[in-house]
Amino acid sequence: MTAFPIQVERTRTLKDKPDIHTLGFGQVFTDHMFVMDYTEGEGWHSARIMPYQPITLDPSAMVFHYGQTVFEGMKAYVTATNEVLLFRPERNFQRLNHSNDRMCIPTINEAHALVALKELVQLDREWIPTAPGTSLYIRPFIIATEPYLGVAASKNYQFIIIMSPVGSYYKEGLNPVKILVEKQYVRAAKGGTGEAKTGGNYASSLKAAELASKEGYAQTLWLDSIENKYIEEVGSMNIFFKINGTVITPALNGSILPGITRDSILHMLHSQNIPVEERRISVDEVVEAYENGTLEEAFGTGTAAVISPIGEFKYGEQQILVNNNEIGLLTQSLYDKLTGIQNGTIEDTFDWTVII
Amino acid sequence: MTAFPIQVERTRTLKDKPDIHTLGFGQVFTDHMFVMDYTEGEGWHSARIMPYQPITLDPSAMVFHYGQTVFEGMKAYVTATNEVLLFRPERNFQRLNHSNDRMCIPTINEAHALVALKELVQLDREWIPTAPGTSLYIRPFIIATEPYLGVAASKNYQFIIIMSPVGSYYKEGLNPVKILVEKQYVRAAKGGTGEAKTGGNYASSLKAAELASKEGYAQTLWLDSIENKYIEEVGSMNIFFKINGTVITPALNGSILPGITRDSILHMLHSQNIPVEERRISVDEVVEAYENGTLEEAFGTGTAAVISPIGEFKYGEQQILVNNNEIGLLTQSLYDKLTGIQNGTIEDTFDWTVII
Ligand SMILES: Cc1ncc(COP(=O)(O)O)c(C=O)c1O
Ligand SMILES: Cc1ncc(COP(=O)(O)O)c(C=O)c1O
Repeated sequence: MTAFPIQVERTRTLKDKPDIHTLGFGQVFTDHMFVMDYTEGEGWHSARIMPYQPITLDPSAMVFHYGQTVFEGMKAYVTATNEVLLFRPERNFQRLNHSNDRMCIPTINEAHALVALKELVQLDREWIPTAPGTSLYIRPFIIATEPYLGVAASKNYQFIIIMSPVGSYYKEGLNPVKILVEKQYVRAAKGGTGEAKTGGNYASSLKAAELASKEGYAQTLWLDSIENKYIEEVGSMNIFFKINGTVITPALNGSILPGITRDSILHMLHSQNIPVEERRISVDEVVEAYENGTLEEAFGTGTAAVISPIGEFKYGEQQILVNNNEIGLLTQSLYDKLTGIQNGTIEDTFDWTVII
Repeated sequence: MTAFPIQVERTRTLKDKPDIHTLGFGQVFTDHMFVMDYTEGEGWHSARIMPYQPITLDPSAMVFHYGQTVFEGMKAYVTATNEVLLFRPERNFQRLNHSNDRMCIPTINEAHALVALKELVQLDREWIPTAPGTSLYIRPFIIATEPYLGVAASKNYQFIIIMSPVGSYYKEGLNPVKILVEKQYVRAAKGGTGEAKTGGNYASSLKAAELASKEGYAQTLWLDSIENKYIEEVGSMNIFFKINGTVITPALNGSILPGITRDSILHMLHSQNIPVEERRISVDEVVEAYENGTLEEAFGTGTAAVISPIGEFKYGEQQILVNNNEIGLLTQSLYDKLTGIQNGTIEDTFDWTVII
């Protein structure tokens, strides 16, 4: 690897740490941030760690107009022996580059990004909370900064990493959630940007989430954009079903975000010799399994919640109860194992964690 | 209308105006901008005109992560008798509110927005260029500013208007362009955000535009997301075909942006008793018309270019020449009439222009 000099400017006044017991998600930020600039002709340059501070941009900066952004989400944990662990961070930077490619943003050097991340986490390691279920959420993102109103790829970008100590994503803790199957709005289309972690996908999801929330549902179940019948994702998570002893998850088809938690769960299931299928699965198949009593479990997977058990689906007038609205055995065991690996209480036989 | 107080802070140093003959698009901005804030519980407040200046936001501001943005584009012209004209500005603020609704952004008071716009244009009226084909481009936009990483609608927003003196959008002037029919990527899906003027639609379009540009094509022709065969838009414009004496444009179907130029052209055609159809039109129909010699004209419509004649389509291996790659008679006459109405040289029998 080529040398990757990072200029470090430490803050003069450390901020107060938040109360660990009332910690929400993504509202409190650490003392420092990482920033790197891209200039056409010059490439990525000026890598620096500096005090967490506002961003100042021209009002014509492209990010405000044409949504050319990508981001990632991952977590750092501190172990009982005071080691700092990251979970498969190289996968996040790999996915960031896939997102970059789709959004016409110049790729970053993944190894350099990991060096920068480690240095930043090390500097702010006192911010990693230790209470069960808590962690340091890490948000790398890239924004288009060129001050120009033409519709075109920006010539300038900023790559930024900010970090936020977080409590559990779901305030109620690990509890089955109710999901509304969305029949009108779609999250992502074939030929669209669903496979990329880019702002527009999330902006377009808000309307359906708002409607679901009004009806008392925690998340939206997204269907495919063409036949409006195959299951894609749930909220900002990938989804798994256990039907008649087999675990089924929608195959990556170009409009589904390739979740790193999804990939990890697939590896864990394979290692336990549990039958797994990655394929198309329709809502009708889930309804049928429910009706003939073979729908055993359902859960979402994602960095924020890790695993989120699903207790009920609503599909038009049809109500689909899962496992009597209780957390399934497999769901619970996968949750315990994966969070255990992530926070260092269970041996990592997969070689996923990276010690800083 | 309720009173709408706008606090005005004038700049101390006026900027130099750019050379009118080398003017591009959207790179130079006027002396002032309009800004208004939204705070949950309080609504829109603090309307102000101030010197054009950078925006300062927390790095966790939602616009950088989840693409919750909307925007508009319109133009101001100055007439030979030194009157300042806007073209159907109330339609832009109406559409902004439709976009707001889709993107879960609080609506604005359209009458207030027009008051603000008029005051801003009046203040910076010296910036409106007078050379033929030039105008003052106006960009109202709204960005989500809440510093929070949860995926949810923001609780705070800024509504901003910036203005840029512009030359002709197409540097070559009114000249037929070559268009590549896009078979892999889609701009917008049924149930998606195509009807809204939001950043994500433009970010997702960049990849196809880049590929088209590499092959020597000026714009992308977008097809529908389901059957990949019905024509939607061309680049950032609506599209019209003249086939066998009848003008055909895709009907607004939820994934097409309802262009104000499109609407104006439809009114002009009706008033001239030219047969018009708003309906689904497939690429195959255009190919067939080309082959049997009835494809007479094709053009795009949009605020930036007003009307852009199309000289050629490429659809896979099929090349479709339109009117021998020359500007069609109807295209030219619509362009002359509409730009004439907009800049005040032709009488506005439609009552579209608004004098400031
Ligand atoms: C739309 C969407 N799907 C799925 C996921 C899950 O991905 P991961 O497991 O990598 O966090 C995410 C991110 O959290 C997401 O935003
Ligand atoms: C995607 C898209 N389609 C069509 C148009 C044309 O709309 P209007 O005529 O209102 O400018 C625009 C905006 O210019 C656009 O961005």
